[in-house]
Amino acid sequence: MTSMLTEVSANRSFGGWHRRYRHYSSVLDCEMTFAVYLPPAAEVRLVPALWWLSGLTCTDENFMQKAGAHGVAAELGMAIVCPDTSPRGTELPGEHDSYDFGSGAGFYLNATREPWNAHYRMYDYVTRELPALVEEQLPLTDQKSISGHSMGGHGALVCALRNPELFSSVSAFAPVCNPSRCPWGVKAFSGYLGDDRESWKEWDACELIRGGARVKELLVDQGDADNFLADGQLQPEALRDACEQARLPLQLRTQPDYDHSYFFIASFIEDHLRHHAGVLNATR
Amino acid sequence: MTSMLTEVSANRSFGGWHRRYRHYSSVLDCEMTFAVYLPPAAEVRLVPALWWLSGLTCTDENFMQKAGAHGVAAELGMAIVCPDTSPRGTELPGEHDSYDFGSGAGFYLNATREPWNAHYRMYDYVTRELPALVEEQLPLTDQKSISGHSMGGHGALVCALRNPELFSSVSAFAPVCNPSRCPWGVKAFSGYLGDDRESWKEWDACELIRGGARVKELLVDQGDADNFLADGQLQPEALRDACEQARLPLQLRTQPDYDHSYFFIASFIEDHLRHHAGVLNATR
Repeated sequence: MTSMLTEVSANRSFGGWHRRYRHYSSVLDCEMTFAVYLPPAAEVRLVPALWWLSGLTCTDENFMQKAGAHGVAAELGMAIVCPDTSPRGTELPGEHDSYDFGSGAGFYLNATREPWNAHYRMYDYVTRELPALVEEQLPLTDQKSISGHSMGGHGALVCALRNPELFSSVSAFAPVCNPSRCPWGVKAFSGYLGDDRESWKEWDACELIRGGARVKELLVDQGDADNFLADGQLQPEALRDACEQARLPLQLRTQPDYDHSYFFIASFIEDHLRHHAGVLNATR
Repeated sequence: MTSMLTEVSANRSFGGWHRRYRHYSSVLDCEMTFAVYLPPAAEVRLVPALWWLSGLTCTDENFMQKAGAHGVAAELGMAIVCPDTSPRGTELPGEHDSYDFGSGAGFYLNATREPWNAHYRMYDYVTRELPALVEEQLPLTDQKSISGHSMGGHGALVCALRNPELFSSVSAFAPVCNPSRCPWGVKAFSGYLGDDRESWKEWDACELIRGGARVKELLVDQGDADNFLADGQLQPEALRDACEQARLPLQLRTQPDYDHSYFFIASFIEDHLRHHAGVLNATR
């Protein structure tokens, strides 16, 4: 049984619509909210979508309000879908105690440890349940690209590497490239997956590539003044090494003086949208 | 004695810099924070600035984060200056009790009633003290345009009408056009100025135009799905009537289905920036 979307709000934006919806997620077993930007073209035909996965502490709102992406999406005739970053409305022990675990920090994986495995299945949500729902009830084709920021950059890389047939292209801004080996990832994976590090490999972009997972190409932007780069949370060099060994074409762009903020994302989102639109148009 | 600017934060954005500063305002008698976007051109020459006045409840941050204006400002070689919307850090009786009076709601006027007149002098702050400060300490010419949203649209119109020599051009998004005759304005003017309605006229764009104040032209965007339009807070028809009687050229654009949000501002800010840049370039 497919759940129905309930519209929460609608804003005209660049000739299209920014709409937020609520629905019951059977995968996450809770009510969820997500946002979609529908370009003007969606009034006369089905359009492809960029799926955007946000970072720690975000909701569906951050990218829509701060990335300045609607204008280019309107021009390109692409929708943008922004899911939330974790299940909501559940009250698991300690769920809201830290910014980097639990609510706002779902890490786009399927948890296997109790009590998280009852709800924290964001991977199935963003790759299966929500695409089926929006492609049935909104004017979207099944053509998808995926991108994201930080924890959401990790999510975009992992979702694409595990589903190269589902996403036509993938890019990321300051992604957590090697979560098995950084403080954020070790905390999240220990909590959601347990201590068997073998089980972590299927949720780590570098490990997936080492294990044979492939996409056609990767586009990654990384600011060199990003404090989380200095803290060792992001590790683009690990992704570069994995891609080199696998001969996977990676365009890793170091952006001088840029930090981890949405000002960085806004500065380069047009490049990413045009990249994805080019691939989507070529494969249509 | 000029107060010094203390940098609070800096983010690279579209090849330029988004910087926030704190300083002591002698006009407001408190510490204030403001933001500036400096385009790449500001590294090699002085640049003109668009002054942006935000609406109720905002700070210096809303426009910078949500309007998507940096890219066009970078291209045009224009700075953007975003002051805060009221004095801060003062603790006047009832100052923080409502969203439309006191903190976050300075209405860009000089209060005459106690206790507000000790601090609430945002008009002098945004037209005199802050321009002098930033034009001395940042790479800005003294060429200025001004725009704003809602309460800040009112502020932009009033500041320009009272200082046509100071601002080369003026525009507004969903401005409070006739504050003497709308609930927000009556509450603010009664509180800040007292009950003598004659004294309100110098802070009301429509009354200023009826009294002979002039600018060369006005550009105003108004969404027709704006709930505050329906509530009678904005009254663009009063501005239209005043401009018609005064033969003041007004380009009043009704934008179908747009609301009062930053999605509306983002959709049309490029038009406004190009309009202001055209005037600034012509007068340079």
